[in-house]
Amino acid sequence: MNDCVFCGIVRGEEPALRVYEDRLTLAFMDTLPATRGHTLVVPKRHRQDLLDATPEEVTAVILAAQRIAIAARESLGADGSNIVQATGAAAHQTVFHLHFHVVPRFSGDSIVIFPRPGLPEEIAAAADHLRSSLSVRL
Amino acid sequence: MNDCVFCGIVRGEEPALRVYEDRLTLAFMDTLPATRGHTLVVPKRHRQDLLDATPEEVTAVILAAQRIAIAARESLGADGSNIVQATGAAAHQTVFHLHFHVVPRFSGDSIVIFPRPGLPEEIAAAADHLRSSLSVRL
Ligand SMILES: [Zn+2]
Ligand SMILES: [Zn+2]
Repeated sequence: MNDCVFCGIVRGEEPALRVYEDRLTLAFMDTLPATRGHTLVVPKRHRQDLLDATPEEVTAVILAAQRIAIAARESLGADGSNIVQATGAAAHQTVFHLHFHVVPRFSGDSIVIFPRPGLPEEIAAAADHLRSSLSVRL
Repeated sequence: MNDCVFCGIVRGEEPALRVYEDRLTLAFMDTLPATRGHTLVVPKRHRQDLLDATPEEVTAVILAAQRIAIAARESLGADGSNIVQATGAAAHQTVFHLHFHVVPRFSGDSIVIFPRPGLPEEIAAAADHLRSSLSVRL
């Protein structure tokens, strides 16, 4: 038990418009939708963010998101979709229970996912840092 | 063989700053980074978008993205991260080979992932459509 609103939804104590669930995940409508059909997918177990979830939970959540993206095309006539996930306040995470947004997209809607300023001179240095942390031979 | 630029990177024929790979996935730096460390993760096999990929491929790609998000915190000092994926031109997909963005976030950066206009009156109707397509008892 805790005071996390998404845990409350999982327990059925907080209202939500549920659209999908399986053993590990629950999906329900975002109450501040960016577009028609904007859905959130969460692990049923409380996990703070992407870094905190097990591989099994991350897998279950993304496969549920894939199913919802397919359903948005079939049932809402979406022309496309975005998957968006935020880890940390710096990334504008506001509910600290891991959730993936599935945002159906419609031709001509005016949603902008993110701007793309050019910082190419810093790319190689960042790659070096990541490689050293990932320790994979390429 | 095809003229997909990401397939060219996978084959080693197009330049890219690679940071991670495993049996099914490859990750490399975005050449138009939104932030320092902005990385793309792709399945090695050509798949157009999220709807076109197998569950095994989607799983491999998201778990690689999780590893990169962890590496961004460890190696770049990121305060958080966003995962972003676009399916379809309506969602601003520009390279039609499935890719997940891993966007490291730093406190005080000015990236906006998406605005959140309020359309709550349409939420319930959208939920009905999605439920009927997903065919899951809740
Ligand atoms: Zn929770
Ligand atoms: Zn390709």
